[in-house]
Amino acid sequence: MRLDVAFSPAGLAPGEVAGRTVAVVDILRATTTICAALHAGARAVVPVASTEEALRLAQTLGADDVRLAGERQGRRIEGFPLGNSPLEMTPEAVRGRTLVMTTTNGTRALLATQGAHQVFLASAANFSVAAAAARQAWVDRQELLVLCAGRDGRFGLDDAYAAGRLVEAALARQRAARGLNDAAIACLDLVRRYGRRWDRPLLRSAAGRHLSEIGFADDVQEAARQDTAPVLPVFAERRVTAVPA
Amino acid sequence: MRLDVAFSPAGLAPGEVAGRTVAVVDILRATTTICAALHAGARAVVPVASTEEALRLAQTLGADDVRLAGERQGRRIEGFPLGNSPLEMTPEAVRGRTLVMTTTNGTRALLATQGAHQVFLASAANFSVAAAAARQAWVDRQELLVLCAGRDGRFGLDDAYAAGRLVEAALARQRAARGLNDAAIACLDLVRRYGRRWDRPLLRSAAGRHLSEIGFADDVQEAARQDTAPVLPVFAERRVTAVPA
Repeated sequence: MRLDVAFSPAGLAPGEVAGRTVAVVDILRATTTICAALHAGARAVVPVASTEEALRLAQTLGADDVRLAGERQGRRIEGFPLGNSPLEMTPEAVRGRTLVMTTTNGTRALLATQGAHQVFLASAANFSVAAAAARQAWVDRQELLVLCAGRDGRFGLDDAYAAGRLVEAALARQRAARGLNDAAIACLDLVRRYGRRWDRPLLRSAAGRHLSEIGFADDVQEAARQDTAPVLPVFAERRVTAVPA
Repeated sequence: MRLDVAFSPAGLAPGEVAGRTVAVVDILRATTTICAALHAGARAVVPVASTEEALRLAQTLGADDVRLAGERQGRRIEGFPLGNSPLEMTPEAVRGRTLVMTTTNGTRALLATQGAHQVFLASAANFSVAAAAARQAWVDRQELLVLCAGRDGRFGLDDAYAAGRLVEAALARQRAARGLNDAAIACLDLVRRYGRRWDRPLLRSAAGRHLSEIGFADDVQEAARQDTAPVLPVFAERRVTAVPA
């Protein structure tokens, strides 16, 4: 049995994903926002790589219930009705709708999971539900990969802490040093360091500081709140939908 | 001022290295071994990417005082008189000689530093000397990059801990969260977690466990000993030489 953490999808080999259960983490903010959207009643979220692809797909789908969402450098894409903020994802804005979404790092992570056995999304917003899913996968002796979105192909403290919380939950009280890669061990070390306070690593991270600087301090606080959106978003057939908890 | 850590040379952009002072860390074992070799009187260590290149260069240099050194999967390369063990680097074996060396990860990290302002090597073996150099670079307001060799392009706990020790030393008692990237912050967190004991993260790391399994447990213990080789290896013009401490 293996339980690995990858700090970003950059350089991930197909063999590291194939057949595994993958938990994707982009706590600031894509997986937090997707949890919020699905909890608020969105039917599905379709992640796409580029603005152009988002526009094309929205046109193809054509339906009135499609909404474009996404960001570049943290800011809402011009012309898109929704950005990448969990606070935007109100029932009024998203209930019954399909969001076509493109973000800088989160989307890339999701699209890197091709060939996985199962893919679910994790954040503080759905932590207890995601932790139960990770625990179940470990108990079922599945090969588990926690895939952090990271930042531009690099390590992000925010995602690494969240990954550590998931690894801790998967292992429960087991002291299973065996089967963990070094990144998973270091993530557990970060959990020891920061304890249960999501806000501490989030505020310290480059992503959290950047978001605060461009006016999204409330999003960072929101992303640090646990269990506000108790859904299990599952990514399959190119779309993310909620499995009822 | 910036003080960044990179967990591996994979995906490092030339812009991240250009003009910076770079400390290369491959504590298990290349930078430890090179420190030991230079401390034992080796004239220089020339890192090369492949076995073939090592053989070719040794032939070109032609001199009696050249020795081939290196490993693949941790084991000495067949036909090479020296592997990648600090314990092999006795004065009898290396004094006055030039080592042509190829290792799995450390060599790659060194060769990724092209364009840097200055490159030095760090390990526990030369920790106090390397820490002083890192501290000096920070005081001189140089842009500092601690480049971990990592493992096959991935995060290694052993190098990350060593990087954290260097970052801590560079900052001295300053609480400079600004200017550090997330990886540097996480490395400091690892130092908080493991304290001053080099052996704890080394023994926990995948590299340390692998070395122990293939018969190099003594190397791991040796790599965890501080200040056994107080030299400052500097990499310039394709070779590593010792600057007297």
